Formats: sequence, C-alpha cells, structure tokens
Amino acid sequence: MAQVQLFGLWGSPFSCRVEIALKLKGVEYEYIEEDLSNKSPLLLQYNPIHKKVPVLVHKRKPIAESLVILEYIDETWNERNPILPHDPYERATARFWAKFIDEKCIFALWKACWSEEKEREEAAREASEHLQTLEDVLKDKRFFGGDMIGLVDIVANFIGFWLGIIEEATGVKLLTEEKYPKLYKWSEEFVNCSAIKENLPPRDKLLAYMRARYGVSITY
Amino acid sequence: MAQVQLFGLWGSPFSCRVEIALKLKGVEYEYIEEDLSNKSPLLLQYNPIHKKVPVLVHKRKPIAESLVILEYIDETWNERNPILPHDPYERATARFWAKFIDEKCIFALWKACWSEEKEREEAAREASEHLQTLEDVLKDKRFFGGDMIGLVDIVANFIGFWLGIIEEATGVKLLTEEKYPKLYKWSEEFVNCSAIKENLPPRDKLLAYMRARYGVSITY
Repeated sequence: MAQVQLFGLWGSPFSCRVEIALKLKGVEYEYIEEDLSNKSPLLLQYNPIHKKVPVLVHKRKPIAESLVILEYIDETWNERNPILPHDPYERATARFWAKFIDEKCIFALWKACWSEEKEREEAAREASEHLQTLEDVLKDKRFFGGDMIGLVDIVANFIGFWLGIIEEATGVKLLTEEKYPKLYKWSEEFVNCSAIKENLPPRDKLLAYMRARYGVSITY
Repeated sequence: MAQVQLFGLWGSPFSCRVEIALKLKGVEYEYIEEDLSNKSPLLLQYNPIHKKVPVLVHKRKPIAESLVILEYIDETWNERNPILPHDPYERATARFWAKFIDEKCIFALWKACWSEEKEREEAAREASEHLQTLEDVLKDKRFFGGDMIGLVDIVANFIGFWLGIIEEATGVKLLTEEKYPKLYKWSEEFVNCSAIKENLPPRDKLLAYMRARYGVSITY
C-alpha cells in the first residue's frame, strides 16, 4: 500500500484540487479512480459521513473534504510551494475567498448553466455578481495567491477550467473577456501554468461528458 | 479605536463562537452589538460580501466568517489555550467535524425544530442521524477537543446551548439523555465550563426571544 493514496474521480474539480496540491508539493501518490455508481467499500469505509471523493489516505489515515485536505497537505509537506500564505491575516483572507468560491460561486455558476430557462436568468445574475467580486479581488495580481498559485487559485479551478467547458457544452456564456478581463486572463494563466496543466482532465473527454449530460450529441 | 473589535449579535451562536475564542485566549476586545434590521455602515463596509456578523476587526483589518475568524484567533494569539490541535492529522479531523456541524447539523437541527409539521419528521430523522454521529465521535472524551475545549466544541455551541432552548420554546425534543448519553453529558459539561458559561447569552432572554419567534407568549 502506497504511503499516500487519493480516491478521486477523473472529471471532478474537487479531486483535481487535491491532485494539484500534491503535485505542487512533489508528493508521490497512488491514484484510485472511483465509480460513483458503484462506490468501493474502501471509499465508504474512509468517508462514511459524506461517501464522496476526494479522500486522501496518508499513512493509512483518511482525510475527506477537499478544503480540509488542502490545509493538511500544506501543513504536512511544508517545505516547498506554500499553498497558504504565512501571515495570519493573509491566511484568513485566502480562507475567506476559498470558502466563498466553494459555498457561493460554484453553485451559482452551475445553476446558471444547467437550470431550467425560467430559473436561469436569476442564477446568471447571481453568478455575474460573484464573478465581478472575484474580478475585483484579483486586481492586477497574476494569481489570487500573488505571483504563485495558492489556495484560492486551486479552489477556483472550477472557474479556471470547468466553467469554459460547461459554457461550450451548454451554450451559456458567463466568463467573457469583455466583462471580466482580469478573471479571464487569470483563467488563461491558470490553465497554462505547468503545475495545473499537467493535472487537469483531458478537455475533449470532459467536453464530451458535459455535452452528453446536456443531452447534446458530441457530433452536433 | 480598540485594537480588537467584534461586531456581533447577542443571540447569535456564530458571534458567540468568536467571543468564546477571544476569552479563551485572554484577548481584550470592544464588543459592538449590531441591529440586523438596520445594519451599521461599518458592518457593511467590513463584510460587504455576506453583510453578516460576526466580524472581527484587528488592527483595523476586518475578518468575516466565524470558522475563518477562529483559525485567525488561534494563529494570532498562539501562546495559550490552543483551539486547534498541533498535529496536522488531528487538525484535519477537527476541521472536518467543525465543517460537518456548520454545514449539516445546525441546519438539520434548526429545521427539525422550526419547519412545518409535514417536513419535520424527515428533518428530525436527519437531525437524529447527525446527533448519533457526534455521539460516536465524542466517545468517552470530556470534550471533542479532549480534556480541553477545542474548535469542534466551540463550533458545536449551538448543540450545547441553543438547541436546549429551542427545544424548550418549540416543544420538540431531540437531544435526550436516553438516546445520546455522551452528547448530553458533553452539553452539560460545555455550558458549565467557566470559559463558556461567562460568554453565553442570558438563557431567559434567549428563551423569551425563541418563544416570541415561535409565536408562543412568554407567559404561556
């Protein structure tokens, strides 16, 4: 049994967060792909409360919830590529925005793309508000973490990569260069950053999955 | 202007979490009571995203979201009464349960007490499941944090104090000694612990507030 194992799902932004963090830290790990329609006994044993990926197992001890795992990785492999800043106030700020993205943005963006037409307008309004907030937070920094990828960037991977694919699959356009030039530029920097690029799922496969989910043929 | 200010609400378990943490650390602070029906310009300035209490202001810099504030307090005043354990795995475990209580339990318990009768049964079933989970987590420890109050205890203040009052106001009974002897004992230890007792809102005032909210006269 490898010292570090990750139970994940290839298309999940939450699993991907943990992969990015492990790669940033240079941690070797065994990746175990889960089948959510037939969850493994080990996943259910390791995460009996939520029964969800990702689960990180380190020295046979499981940790669930991606935000909790990211903090654990940063504290355990603390010699290179800090995920959280050193200063307590900056750490609090990073945690605040990570929580905001996790609890508010992703849900609003998802709803703005997938919900029924009558609900979509209200969801799009809310999503736009959140994107504007992040545009203002980013200011003229390269990444939310400054010059380097940090907690907020990792947690925002849904916006940096998944959102563009869902937009393409559904025809909904939210993150445009015209409306959010800084966030748009960030998303380009994000997917082209080597630590990220190597750990994202294949774009075509994810697009096909999203299109199939949306009920549109991939040959459309 | 005091070096540490807390914008709170007397009856809020979320404000109370921050007060408990500040008292545990021996931090002097100025408490500013907010009126949620007429929020102060300072609250809106300090927490423009959520417009909610609690907000901690330290050296003129604001921090919102009670879980984020608790971590900040622990990192900033780190010389006494640790709120999180030292070991990264134990820290991850504490964060996992704090998140579980915050995102799952409180909502389920609240719903089980306040929702319409037809929804109440399902909500009560879910709430019972969560209480059983916490009963199992507690095992034979005095507090979730071991011998001392820690992050999970502070976040569980809703269960330790508010729940009993809401039960009394609504007539719903969830946390019974028979079903959850460990958690029940914990709630007694919790409210009688000096660091907690001194920082809880007045029981009678909160009960009157909850009864009024439930539409039952306090003279009933």
